[in-house]
This record gives sequence, structure tokens and C-alpha cells, in this order.
Amino acid sequence: MKARLNLQEYVTGILQGDRVVLAKAITLIESTRSEDRALADRVLETVLPHTGKSLRIGITGVPGVGKSTFIEAFGKYAIEKHKKKVAVLTVDPSSSLTKGSILGDKTRMETLAKHPMAFIRPSATGEALGGIAHRTREALHLCEAAGFDFIIVETVGVGQSEVAVKNIVDFFLLLMLAGAGDELQGIKKGIMEMADAIAITKADGDNVKHAREAQAEYQHAFHVMRTDDSGWSPKVLTCSSLTMEGIDDTWNTLSDFEKRMKANGYFETRRQHQQVSWMHECFESLIKIQIEKSARTTQHSTELEQLVLRKVITPQGAAATLFQTLLTSLKNNPS
Amino acid sequence: MKARLNLQEYVTGILQGDRVVLAKAITLIESTRSEDRALADRVLETVLPHTGKSLRIGITGVPGVGKSTFIEAFGKYAIEKHKKKVAVLTVDPSSSLTKGSILGDKTRMETLAKHPMAFIRPSATGEALGGIAHRTREALHLCEAAGFDFIIVETVGVGQSEVAVKNIVDFFLLLMLAGAGDELQGIKKGIMEMADAIAITKADGDNVKHAREAQAEYQHAFHVMRTDDSGWSPKVLTCSSLTMEGIDDTWNTLSDFEKRMKANGYFETRRQHQQVSWMHECFESLIKIQIEKSARTTQHSTELEQLVLRKVITPQGAAATLFQTLLTSLKNNPS
Repeated sequence: MKARLNLQEYVTGILQGDRVVLAKAITLIESTRSEDRALADRVLETVLPHTGKSLRIGITGVPGVGKSTFIEAFGKYAIEKHKKKVAVLTVDPSSSLTKGSILGDKTRMETLAKHPMAFIRPSATGEALGGIAHRTREALHLCEAAGFDFIIVETVGVGQSEVAVKNIVDFFLLLMLAGAGDELQGIKKGIMEMADAIAITKADGDNVKHAREAQAEYQHAFHVMRTDDSGWSPKVLTCSSLTMEGIDDTWNTLSDFEKRMKANGYFETRRQHQQVSWMHECFESLIKIQIEKSARTTQHSTELEQLVLRKVITPQGAAATLFQTLLTSLKNNPS
Repeated sequence: MKARLNLQEYVTGILQGDRVVLAKAITLIESTRSEDRALADRVLETVLPHTGKSLRIGITGVPGVGKSTFIEAFGKYAIEKHKKKVAVLTVDPSSSLTKGSILGDKTRMETLAKHPMAFIRPSATGEALGGIAHRTREALHLCEAAGFDFIIVETVGVGQSEVAVKNIVDFFLLLMLAGAGDELQGIKKGIMEMADAIAITKADGDNVKHAREAQAEYQHAFHVMRTDDSGWSPKVLTCSSLTMEGIDDTWNTLSDFEKRMKANGYFETRRQHQQVSWMHECFESLIKIQIEKSARTTQHSTELEQLVLRKVITPQGAAATLFQTLLTSLKNNPS
């Protein structure tokens, strides 16, 4: 098959669930070339009516928590036990093949990747965070149009990408390790409270006891925190990708969440908010691009920041000056 | 004294610590009339070099937690024991005199208000949240120029105003009640984790035991959460505005925080970030005002949101259309 397809070929392939075409389409939306971007926009627009039917799941956790093995175990369970099609999109600004190899992770989700009902796609590296969220959201919609029932968005729980991902999924699952003071394990404030559920991984063998203790700890912490508007109280589970213990609990929690959020209308409301905020994010990003394009504004901005820090001008005054510069540049550059 | 002063009168009065002039200046910055705004900007710009020397403290908690009595007790302690000048700015979008009266709160910080080393100022009600933060930040700078050592910004812990306030203060104190399942008391997720310290109020008489239990609970919850980049671990205190027990602990925690954050450079770094983000917030708010001014864009925006929700166009497509509309309106309206 040729490297570049036309609009019709992309659309037909995606709607038929052709994983090769789907992969090519995601490459297209990740391209920074403006003609690719134009075609990508048309592909997205055409398949849009066929999106929205999956359950979108964000999964995060620090390196070493066992994300890949968990997703592989969960994915196989969903496919084999419940006949669901599973797509996995990974977002990791810092990842590379080499790093994966260092962790002995050469066979990253290898069995799942080979399954005809699964689709696994790492994100392009080296992009800005905002960009990754944009592209991941688009890839997620392509996967939905291709008929996947579960879209898992995997991130590494060390940075800001979780916030962006939380905003594009229905359910957010945090994986944690138990034992030996591991309760803290570098999870930043804020990630825990975005979670709809925590799963303590590697709860097998001697580790089961530690996992149960950690479970009690987190349940307690969730109890102190307030639930949010959805009426959902975050769950704490234990599981093992080795013994498959607890994988069905995770599945049941997800099903329960979906059923209850659909029943009380929160599911649809949240999706609608996400769609509208997607539009406004795109709009703001267009404005930001325009602002950055204007080199004069950018340079001016740095100068003004310095004046603000030296208390020569007020932040208001600096902002007003910057705004006038932007207006002038917009008027002179018909974009 | 006449109602409206000129630039020189405002500036001199503020720098001399004249509380009547300070109050008038805050009224000026709260005005929405454009000529007042222009004068307010000049006042701010002139006193700016005299700002930055106070410790800025955000205090929040649900209604009934005893914010007023705590602030009164703490304020009097700071004045009488440590000879510090204390200003209190209250931010409560929903407050009114009537509501205060219903709670039997007619004597709201009455003794503190009368003290020559104190200054108490409720915010203008009915404004948008972003607006309140802007105006409060400006009022805070005026109080600093007037020589106050402690500026307390008081908010009600039920909404989004805490996030805005967190962004303008050095230290964020959350007041909580103990006992009878009160651990949850409506504090939203996220407010707790903004806290640099929690003070359990009304820890007197029979309540002391409950307060100690709650203290252990919160300490545990903080232990599970990760500390942030400052290296500061949030403290949990108990106090009574009745017996004054624990007020000195709060004072010591504040002093300790200030000393350690100044020593490791975090204090200054954080202030600098706040100043720069203040400028960018003003800039973005100018852009937003311009966008809202253009009625055509606003109407267009709602129409486009509907098309996005009906999946007629993609969020990207809608954003691009909106952006073109904005550009056209900017070019036609020289602002």
C-alpha cells in the first residue's frame, strides 16, 4: 500500500476498522506539514459522525508500576472474556525505544499488539504537551470511528500530561505500587485526586499483604477528600497482571461507573463539556500561535516581564502595551 | 475630606499609611468607570516600588468554621504580641450584610476593625471571580504600600475563588471543624491540597478530643499526598479563638514557613512567577474583553458550539472559523 492515501481511502479504511489505514491516518494527524494538516482535518470531519461510542480510559502511574503489563492483562481480558475491541494510545513525552530497552521492556504489550481485536499506538515523541493532548484526542476519535470499544490513553504519572488526558477521557485510573514506603512514590499532588479509581498493582505472592495495607491507606485518603459533582466515590482496587487476580474487579468498576454515570446523565454532560472546551482550546491555541508568530510581540513580552519584575511598570500597564502591539501586528499581517 | 482625591493625594495618603485614603483608593480600583480605572492604574504604578514587603496569607473555610473570630484572634495576637500591622481583605462573591446578620455575625471583627494597626476591607460583591482576584490583588498591593506587615485574604471555601487567591498569596491556611463526620464538611477536592497548613478551629472544652482526632486524620491524608516543589510539608494545627490556644502555633508555623522559603529561594521565585503570571492574566483578559466586545464573535461562538455538539463540524474547524471572525472584527474595529 502506498504511504499516502487520499481522503476517501483514509475514511473507508478507518470505518472498515482497517488497522493499517488507522495507523497511517494517525501518522497523518501527527504530521506538522500544512498540507497533511489540511487533509487530516478533512478526514476527522468526515469520520466525526461515527465517533463517541467507546469508553475512554486514562491510565497513569510512575515508571515501574507495571502499566504495560496491566494494560496487556486488562486488554486481553476485555477481548477474550467480553469480546471488546481495545485500542491503546500511549502518551509519553520522554519515552524512546532505547529507554524502553533499558527497562528490559522490549516486548512491550507484544501479545496484545498481535491480537486482531487490539490496536496499540505510541505517540510521536518530542512534541509540546498541549500538542500531544490535541493529537491524542484526534487519534482517539479515529480509533472510535474504526469501531474500538475501549480506548486506553496511557501516560506516565510524573508531569502535566495527566491533566490534559483527564480532560479527554471518561474514566481515569491511577496505578500504584504497594510496600516499603512506596505510598509516596513520586505521584504529584493532584494526580491522585483526578483518579476515579486506584489499582494497586503486583498484588501477588508476598506482596498481597502490602497491597491490602496500601489499599486501606488510599481508601482512607479518598474518604477524607470530597467526591466531585458526578456522585462517584473513587474506588481502590488491588490486582495482579501475573495471577490476573483483580482484573475482573477493575472491569466491574469500569462497567459500574459507565452504567451509573450514563444513568444520572453525567456521562453525556461531561462529554459535551469536553467537546466544547476542545473547540475553545483550539481557538485559544490559534490565538497563541498568532501571538507567537509575531516575533515582535514575543520579544516585547520578555522585555515587559523584566520591567514588571523590576517594578518599573505594573502588570496591567505591561499587558496593555502588549495588547496594543498584538493589535498592530494583527492589522498588518492579514494572517 | 472630599470623595475623590487626585493622584498625589492618593499616593501620599497611602504611603503615609492613612487608612481613610487607603479605603478610598480601594474604592477607586473597584470602580468600573473608565476614568476611575485610568486614575487607579496611575496610583498603582506610582506606589508599586513600595510594595512586596508583607507576608500574604490566604485563609479559607466553610461558613461557620469561625473565620472571622479566628482572623480577629490571630490579628490581635500579631498586633499586640509582635507589633505587626495587619490588613484583612475579604473575598466573598455571595456575601451581603443581611447574610452576615442572619448568622448573628453583626460584630464581624469589630474589635480588630477598631484597632489603629489594623485595616479591614470587604470586597465589592457581585463581580465575576476573575475580576475579584484582579481587584483583590490590586488592593493587596495598596495595603503593602501603606506599610501593612500581614495581608490576610479571606475567602469562603466553597468555590473557585480559592484557586485565584492561592495565586496571589504566599501562604494558604485552611480552617476546618472537627467532630461528628465533619471531616468532609463540603470542602471540595483540591482546596485541601492547596493548603500550606490546616487549622482545626474551636478546639476548646469538650471539642478538644475531636479536634485532636481530626488533626491525626488530616496529618495522615497529607502524609499520603506528596509535598510540592517548595519542600514544605503542610502542617495540621488545632486552635481556639476562645482560649487563644494554638494561635501561637499558627504564628510559629507562618514564621517558620517564611524563614525556610526565603532561605531556599522559593519565596522570591514564587513571587516572581506570580508577578509575571499577573501580567499574562491581564493580557489574556484584555484579549477576552476584545473577543466579548465583538458581539458577532460571541453569537457565532454559540452557534459553532451547537454545530460541534451535533458533530456537524470538528472543534478544530469551528475554532478556525471563530478565529477568522475575530481577525476580521479586530481589523474593522481599531479598538
